[in-house]
Amino acid sequence: MTTRLITGIGQLVTNEPADDRSHGALGVITDAAVLIEHGRIAWVGRAADAPSADETTDAAGAAVIPGFVDSHSHIVFGGDRSAEFEARMSGRPYSAGGIRSTVRATRAADEPELLRRARSLVREMLGQGTTTVEVKSGYGLTVEDEARLLRLAGQLTSEVTYLGAHVVPEEFADDRGGYVDLVTGAMLDACAPGARWIDVFCETGAFTVDEARRILSAGKARGLGVRVHAGQLGVGDGVRLAVELDAASVDHCTYLDDADVQALAGSETVATLLPGVEFSTRQPYPDARRLIDAGVTVAIASDCNPGSSFTSSMPFCIAVAVRDMRMTPAEALWAATAGGAAALRRDDVGRIVAGARADLVRLRADSYVHLAYRPGVPLVAGVWKDGDRVA
Amino acid sequence: MTTRLITGIGQLVTNEPADDRSHGALGVITDAAVLIEHGRIAWVGRAADAPSADETTDAAGAAVIPGFVDSHSHIVFGGDRSAEFEARMSGRPYSAGGIRSTVRATRAADEPELLRRARSLVREMLGQGTTTVEVKSGYGLTVEDEARLLRLAGQLTSEVTYLGAHVVPEEFADDRGGYVDLVTGAMLDACAPGARWIDVFCETGAFTVDEARRILSAGKARGLGVRVHAGQLGVGDGVRLAVELDAASVDHCTYLDDADVQALAGSETVATLLPGVEFSTRQPYPDARRLIDAGVTVAIASDCNPGSSFTSSMPFCIAVAVRDMRMTPAEALWAATAGGAAALRRDDVGRIVAGARADLVRLRADSYVHLAYRPGVPLVAGVWKDGDRVA
Ligand SMILES: [Zn+2]
Ligand SMILES: [Zn+2]
Repeated sequence: MTTRLITGIGQLVTNEPADDRSHGALGVITDAAVLIEHGRIAWVGRAADAPSADETTDAAGAAVIPGFVDSHSHIVFGGDRSAEFEARMSGRPYSAGGIRSTVRATRAADEPELLRRARSLVREMLGQGTTTVEVKSGYGLTVEDEARLLRLAGQLTSEVTYLGAHVVPEEFADDRGGYVDLVTGAMLDACAPGARWIDVFCETGAFTVDEARRILSAGKARGLGVRVHAGQLGVGDGVRLAVELDAASVDHCTYLDDADVQALAGSETVATLLPGVEFSTRQPYPDARRLIDAGVTVAIASDCNPGSSFTSSMPFCIAVAVRDMRMTPAEALWAATAGGAAALRRDDVGRIVAGARADLVRLRADSYVHLAYRPGVPLVAGVWKDGDRVA
Repeated sequence: MTTRLITGIGQLVTNEPADDRSHGALGVITDAAVLIEHGRIAWVGRAADAPSADETTDAAGAAVIPGFVDSHSHIVFGGDRSAEFEARMSGRPYSAGGIRSTVRATRAADEPELLRRARSLVREMLGQGTTTVEVKSGYGLTVEDEARLLRLAGQLTSEVTYLGAHVVPEEFADDRGGYVDLVTGAMLDACAPGARWIDVFCETGAFTVDEARRILSAGKARGLGVRVHAGQLGVGDGVRLAVELDAASVDHCTYLDDADVQALAGSETVATLLPGVEFSTRQPYPDARRLIDAGVTVAIASDCNPGSSFTSSMPFCIAVAVRDMRMTPAEALWAATAGGAAALRRDDVGRIVAGARADLVRLRADSYVHLAYRPGVPLVAGVWKDGDRVA
């Protein structure tokens, strides 16, 4: 049994509410230390009070924060859409793009190649401090292809989401009802055992609120937790559906009416904002301030995917959330750690408290504020996951 | 004599005009190779045609681009302004900030500490692909302190800029004329030998256009090249002054009237845009499209400084320029390489052509488009400066 002490931490962000509210909900301890045992946090406090340990690492005054919890990604896919991005940003038409182009490329890709590329993205995320990631299917859209994507996702993370209802695939263009039958029938049978969550893209052009209710209810009846994509392109009924079904999270939330905000504030459903999407599509940003001031729990996630947001960087998402969504640096960091954990209904990640997983990030900075103050700069100097140094 | 061949380059950005204009001015060669000898590019072409070399590196299909030329930074300084940033982004008042607070901290800092921190920023820049950086004084504002900053800057780069006219220091608050006399007299005497450039912050609250003309003309008479900070906070006469004095670059250019744009288009003066400033101060972005469409040469730089833009990341600046300044990915990359070189009146950097310095960046991507497509992701996989692998 090895115990490991990280000491000399100039600023430790615990996300455990503290009397000192000068950093909002972050629960900051200065001159701190953390004891790790069996992959878990065993003790947290002032360095001067630290117990002895088998191994000691000196953080030399740096800030240490919880590993990021990225609660929304689509990282198992084939193909590339950089040409589509380039055309969009250059104002040129591009007809071959969209989710369906990734569906075609993903179906055509072989499994080792899909896994190799997804693992490379997970490593990239780890290197930027993401220690927990959710991964969705949604680029298969047949029973076999969706089940395959969930099998691969399950090799990357325990937070696996069945998103058969990403879009209606081309072959069902004239039979939407038939596709909903499939998603709630044979596809659900094949996918439920390998998933923790079910998700629907509830938006004009994807699935209606009635279709979404049917699909999510079927998943819920099979024991899956509920997540919803809604409010990306316009105000709709998806957000209130998410609250009605006690979804863990409703994601995007770019367009919300007052009733949506009220419904969220009175619920356990987290509003997950995806700054990379608005950044990469030149859409207007959601207003996090409005949500936080109304009492809504807000998370930030990357939505890492090849079409609308191919960033894997939670520090980048934090910087944009502060610049463009009216979040304070403290709120944005909380949303990217404890907020992500709430969006996954987890209390063992996103916090540095006794009993939680030892998922920690050491910054190349003496304050977490640098994540927003120094945008784009690689500030992650060390990453521990389950107590092991992984980056 | 060692020759080194980098081959297997999937996409080589040369910035040498090519017949194929599908990547704008980038001059892209696919399946390319580059030969390096004595720290210079000795040959560029298709890999199949490459000469033999003593050492060979295989880029395995990755994109290779010229090292970034960051033509505007203020990286020799003391103190920290993260609390000021945090207050600004949280909507709280903060009275102790501004350039003058960095002047106080810089004057109080000892030389080894200033140099250690500046070197750390240069290393950080190198790791992100910046192989040429300009460094300004401007946090000393006494004869001794400005001369000291230029001495330190000269240990970091050959692109050293005398910015005694950054702001009027507190001790001259009631004697602006006396400070201009100092900047053009004893301070210029002490600083000119160690500098290549002279610069003035020509803006309401800093120096008037008449003061700027006097200062820049004095520097020019001493053989210094001219640069100007102008158009950051509002339209003024600084841009036309820059053109009048044949400045190599006028920087910020956030606010321009049509006469400014016309004057720039008819000149050799580069308009250097600083996306990090607008990002970190929540100001509106300049419109690069308007400038490019009018025929103005545009550069992008970081303006790395502790107050208004503490990013050192040129990839981040490219991504923001594409998102928010209406540049295409090709235009933004050109502006961050060849554009920066033009802003420093250099033709030995910013291009991968025979005779130029062997300053190259290998990306963790098969196309330069990823610099904008994958914002915040550390995509720099290898950096060569003067032919040596430095990151
Ligand atoms: Zn999504
Ligand atoms: Zn500046």
